Amino acid sequence: MSDSPVAGATLARLSTRDADFDARLEALLAWEGVSDAEVQHRVDEILATVKARGDAALVEYSNRFDRLAVTGMAELAVGPERLREAYEGLPEAQREALSQAAERIRAYHERQKPESWRYTEADGSVLGQQITPLDRAGIYVPGGKAAYPSSVLMNAIPAHVAGVPEIVMVVPTPDGVLNELVLAAAHLAGVDHVFTLGGAQAVAALAYGTETVPRVDKIVGPGNIYVATAKRAVFGQVGIDMIAGPSEILVVSDGGTDPEWLAMDLFSQAEHDENAQALLVSWESEHLAEVEAAIERLLPTLDREAIVRESLASRGALIACRDRDEAVALVNRIAPEHLELSLAEPEALLPAIRHAGAIFMGRYTAEALGDYCAGPNHVLPTSGTARFSSPLGVYDFQKRSSIIHCSPEGASELGRTASVLARGESLTAHARSAEYRIRD
Amino acid sequence: MSDSPVAGATLARLSTRDADFDARLEALLAWEGVSDAEVQHRVDEILATVKARGDAALVEYSNRFDRLAVTGMAELAVGPERLREAYEGLPEAQREALSQAAERIRAYHERQKPESWRYTEADGSVLGQQITPLDRAGIYVPGGKAAYPSSVLMNAIPAHVAGVPEIVMVVPTPDGVLNELVLAAAHLAGVDHVFTLGGAQAVAALAYGTETVPRVDKIVGPGNIYVATAKRAVFGQVGIDMIAGPSEILVVSDGGTDPEWLAMDLFSQAEHDENAQALLVSWESEHLAEVEAAIERLLPTLDREAIVRESLASRGALIACRDRDEAVALVNRIAPEHLELSLAEPEALLPAIRHAGAIFMGRYTAEALGDYCAGPNHVLPTSGTARFSSPLGVYDFQKRSSIIHCSPEGASELGRTASVLARGESLTAHARSAEYRIRD
Repeated sequence: MSDSPVAGATLARLSTRDADFDARLEALLAWEGVSDAEVQHRVDEILATVKARGDAALVEYSNRFDRLAVTGMAELAVGPERLREAYEGLPEAQREALSQAAERIRAYHERQKPESWRYTEADGSVLGQQITPLDRAGIYVPGGKAAYPSSVLMNAIPAHVAGVPEIVMVVPTPDGVLNELVLAAAHLAGVDHVFTLGGAQAVAALAYGTETVPRVDKIVGPGNIYVATAKRAVFGQVGIDMIAGPSEILVVSDGGTDPEWLAMDLFSQAEHDENAQALLVSWESEHLAEVEAAIERLLPTLDREAIVRESLASRGALIACRDRDEAVALVNRIAPEHLELSLAEPEALLPAIRHAGAIFMGRYTAEALGDYCAGPNHVLPTSGTARFSSPLGVYDFQKRSSIIHCSPEGASELGRTASVLARGESLTAHARSAEYRIRD
Repeated sequence: MSDSPVAGATLARLSTRDADFDARLEALLAWEGVSDAEVQHRVDEILATVKARGDAALVEYSNRFDRLAVTGMAELAVGPERLREAYEGLPEAQREALSQAAERIRAYHERQKPESWRYTEADGSVLGQQITPLDRAGIYVPGGKAAYPSSVLMNAIPAHVAGVPEIVMVVPTPDGVLNELVLAAAHLAGVDHVFTLGGAQAVAALAYGTETVPRVDKIVGPGNIYVATAKRAVFGQVGIDMIAGPSEILVVSDGGTDPEWLAMDLFSQAEHDENAQALLVSWESEHLAEVEAAIERLLPTLDREAIVRESLASRGALIACRDRDEAVALVNRIAPEHLELSLAEPEALLPAIRHAGAIFMGRYTAEALGDYCAGPNHVLPTSGTARFSSPLGVYDFQKRSSIIHCSPEGASELGRTASVLARGESLTAHARSAEYRIRD
C-alpha cells in the first residue's frame, strides 16, 4: 500500500486496525524543515555583511529584496506616533476586536508571571531565585500575505507583561506596503520601535545591533526559511524562540459535534498553507463518513479552496480508532500543536493527555477562538515538539538568577561537604576555597 | 596598547579609567565556540550512521573511540544494581557528602515545581495552564578527567523532581574505566538506565533511539566539541539544554575579604580548564594589589598550577573601577555565569543586578559551595547568555499545555471578536469556524 492518499481522494482515510497504520501515520507526520546549503550560504553572507556594515547593509538589502528605493534608515523606521495613528484610523469594529483580543491576551499572561522567592535555613543561610526581565526583546513579524496582527499581539504582549523595558519590532514591507492592522497591533501591544526590515538582514540587525537598530537579547516570531535559518545561526549570541514548522491540528471527536463545524475547524488549519496539517480521529466510523461528506460539501465554498485542497490531500487525514484509549494514545504519540477535544466530557480525558501545545475543550471551543482572542498564546510547539516544549509565554522574556547567601555557620557546614566532593573530583582549588570558610 | 596581558604578567590588570578599557574588556570576554567544518562533517556522519544502523554502530564507534573491545550492547549497559553497589562501596565520607549534596539539591529544586492552574470567567469559560513532565530525559556525562559526580546530581535531580518517569544517562568509559563516584551519583539522583556511551554517537542514540537505547525527549549535560555539535544538530528532533561555553566567575570585592580567600576563589574557576575565566573587580586599588600578591604567593601551591596559570594569563583580569555603580554596570554588561558579591552588604547591591546565572552573596559564600552542595543548580548560562537564559532547573524537564474550555456563551462572545480579526487577516475558514459558535 502507498503512503500517499488514494489518487483523487480529498484526504486520507486511516484506521488503527490497518496493518500499515503505523507506517502511514509516520509518513503523514514526517516533516523536515532543513534549510539547504544554498540558503545557509546566503544567510551566512547576509549576517556577516550586516555585522560588518550595519545600517548601510540594511538599506541595500531592503532596497534589493523588498524592492524599495530608500536612502537611509530614517525611511525604515516607524515612530510611535505612526503606530497610534494606525490604531486610531482602523474601522471601529476592527479597533474594538483588536483591543478586546489584546486585553484578554494580557489578562491571561498576567497569570503566568512568576514571583522571585527565597527561604532562610535554620543556620541563617538564604537560598532563592530572582526573576528579571530581558533588557530588550526583538519581535519578527512577517510581511506581505502572512502579516498577521494577531501574531504581533501574541509575541509582544508576553514581553510587555514580563516587564521588558524595550520591545523592538521588525516587519518587512515588500514593495513598500505597510499593513495598518499590524501597526495598530504594535501600538496596542506596547512595542517601542518598529523598523520596516525583513529576512535574514532583520535578524542580523536585531542580533548584532547597528548604528540605528538596537541589539536585542532575544528574537521571537515566525518567518520564512531565511528567517528561520538566520535565527538558528545567531542562537547563542541572542536567545531565540522555537523554530516553528507548519501548523497542525488534531481533533478528537466523540461523534456528537456537528460534522460541518468539524469540517470547518479542519479547514481553518488547512487554509494556513499547503504544508499545514489537519487530522481528525474518532471511534465513531459513521461520524467520520459524515465529516468527510461535510468536507466535500463545504470545500467549494471556501475562499482559499486551492490551498485547503492541497493541504488536505498531502497531509490531512480522517483516522478511525477503536476507542477513547486509542485516541488518547494517538494524541500522546503525535503531541499536536493544537488539540481539539470535541467531546461531551473533555475533562474526563484531560488527565491522560501528556503532550499538546494547546488543548481546546468541548464542542464550542474552536481553535480559531484561541488563535485570536481567548487569551492563551497562539505561538505553540509544532511537529511533535510539544513533547518537550511549551507555548510562548511570559517565561520566554524573563530569566532566573540563583541566590545563595551563606551564613558563617552555613558556609562552615557546606564547606566540609564541598571539600570532600571537590577532592573526589581532583579539583583541589575548589576544595581549598571551600575549606577557608570552615570554622575550627 | 595590546589586548593581551603584558608578557610575563600572571594576569591582566585593567582599569575602567583606561582609554582602551572597553576594547580590552571585549577582547578578554570574546569567545567563539564554533565547530569547524571538519567536526561538523564527522558529527553528521556519526549521527546518520547511528540513525541507520543503531546498536551495531554504537558498538563499533565505542570500540574505536573509547578503545574498547565489546561485542554487543549488553556490555555497554550498566544496571541499577551496579549503581547501588557503586554507592555502597564508596568510602563513608564520600557517601555521606554525596548524599548530603543530593538532599540539598533536591530540597532546592522542589521549591521550583510550578503548579498547574486554571480560572473560570464570568460566563463559565475556563482558561488555564497544565504542567506535565517529559516522558524521558537523557543526561550526558563526560568521561575521563572531566567525569564529575556533582554534574550527575545537578542534571538528573531536577529531572527526577520534575516527575520525569524515565531518566537515561550516558557516560563514555575511555579504555573501559568506570568512575565509581559517577555511578554512585546516578544511583542517588534517580537515574533509571546507564549506557557507557559517549561522543556524538551517544547523542545520536538518545535522539533517535536504537534497539537498546530508548529515544529521549530532551538531552542535557556538558560535553566536548563533538557532543556540543551533535546536540545542536539534533535540536528540534529532541530538546537540548544550552550549549555551554567555558566556565567564568566575576567577583566584586569591597576590599574587606581576605585576599587569599579571593585568590583561591579565582583559582577554583581557573582550574577547570585553560579557557575558564576568572575576573575580580574592586574600587579599592590597594586591595587589588593585595589580591595580586596573594595570587603570586599561592599559585605555586596549587595542584593544577599549569592550567590555572594559563587560564589566568589568557583570560583572567583584576579590574579597578571607580565605585560601586561602575562595578554594577560591569556586572550587567558581562552577565557572568557566576557572580560573587564579596561585600559587607551584598543585599544592597542585589536589586541593581540584572544579569547573572548565580549570585553568591557575602564573604562566606564561595562559588565552590554552590558548585557542590548549596542546593541551586551549577549548570548555568555562560558567555553572557545570562542576559536571556537561566540556570538548569525543574522547568527544563516539564512543559506547559494551554487549556481553553469555552462555555456556549463564552464561545459566542469570542466568536464575534475572532470573526472580525480573522476576516481582517483574510482567513475566512477561521472566521466561519468561529461564527458557527455564535448564538443568534
